[in-house]
Amino acid sequence: MPHIRLPEDLPGITGPLAFRPETAKPLGELAEVLLRGPNTLTSGERETIAAFVSNLNECRFCHASHRAAAAHHLEGDYTVVDAAIGDYRTAPVSPKLKALLAIAAKVAGDARQVSAADVEAARAQGATDTEIHDAVLIAAAFCMYNRYVDGLATWTPAGPDLYDAMGRRLAHEGYAASRG
Amino acid sequence: MPHIRLPEDLPGITGPLAFRPETAKPLGELAEVLLRGPNTLTSGERETIAAFVSNLNECRFCHASHRAAAAHHLEGDYTVVDAAIGDYRTAPVSPKLKALLAIAAKVAGDARQVSAADVEAARAQGATDTEIHDAVLIAAAFCMYNRYVDGLATWTPAGPDLYDAMGRRLAHEGYAASRG
Repeated sequence: MPHIRLPEDLPGITGPLAFRPETAKPLGELAEVLLRGPNTLTSGERETIAAFVSNLNECRFCHASHRAAAAHHLEGDYTVVDAAIGDYRTAPVSPKLKALLAIAAKVAGDARQVSAADVEAARAQGATDTEIHDAVLIAAAFCMYNRYVDGLATWTPAGPDLYDAMGRRLAHEGYAASRG
Repeated sequence: MPHIRLPEDLPGITGPLAFRPETAKPLGELAEVLLRGPNTLTSGERETIAAFVSNLNECRFCHASHRAAAAHHLEGDYTVVDAAIGDYRTAPVSPKLKALLAIAAKVAGDARQVSAADVEAARAQGATDTEIHDAVLIAAAFCMYNRYVDGLATWTPAGPDLYDAMGRRLAHEGYAASRG
């Protein structure tokens, strides 16, 4: 049961977003810019970073919903995102995304551990300053969204169907309408 | 030296905010709503939560700037915020704020550890659902801001003067102008 009285039947972050529209607005806009805004990283790559960090933080709701969003940017195929979450070093993703995921993992732990060598490795695979910035901020932002969802003990539905539908909607309609 | 080429002479988060205005906008709006928007928690109390969490995360820039912002909501007096950061249980703050800081500390670590008993303890001291929500989200948000600042290795000036001036400005002018 959630720690505070949230609108019923709203899973995960959607409960607190509906509870507090004043904070839902910038939270939704941040997700929209980071995950669906114009970018040289694809939305699938950015949602993969989001799902990867949510899995590191063991936030089941965010992991499942952003895993599904990543898949729906790849026509519903879950194999790539699941491989990246399992072990990005051997996953069928670009060397650039691997280097950005390595940075994201450090941000999710102790961000001060991101080293010049980590950043150089990403640059060597073609990552731009903006892509490095965005990978850091996506990882940092999911350290917020994950804690928001779990710190309030929001409802985490079981089963994949709801998440698949949610991921499809997030991929195609986005976050601006306070869906986090 | 920052990991990416940021506008020069901008300390801490102000560098990446200037680098990427698209994300600076919702980041600034979120801080403005959480820390200065209409609320039954005072801005001093909310900045104290921000400084407290930033200290737990060992983010020197955010700790120093939000410590100063908290002080400038109290006419420049640093004693209360420093006591709360040192040991909130013995600090001269309200029992309600102590209970909210206990929750914030758990959010900054493993947010799943926030218990019904923690929330009950805050309610017993008069905390409302919105105040509990906001304490959780402020703590979660600073887990993002702290990682953003440190994951990019932004410039952390030494000495208290710059932070005192920054805290005064944040307290009186706010975050909306992309100051984070």
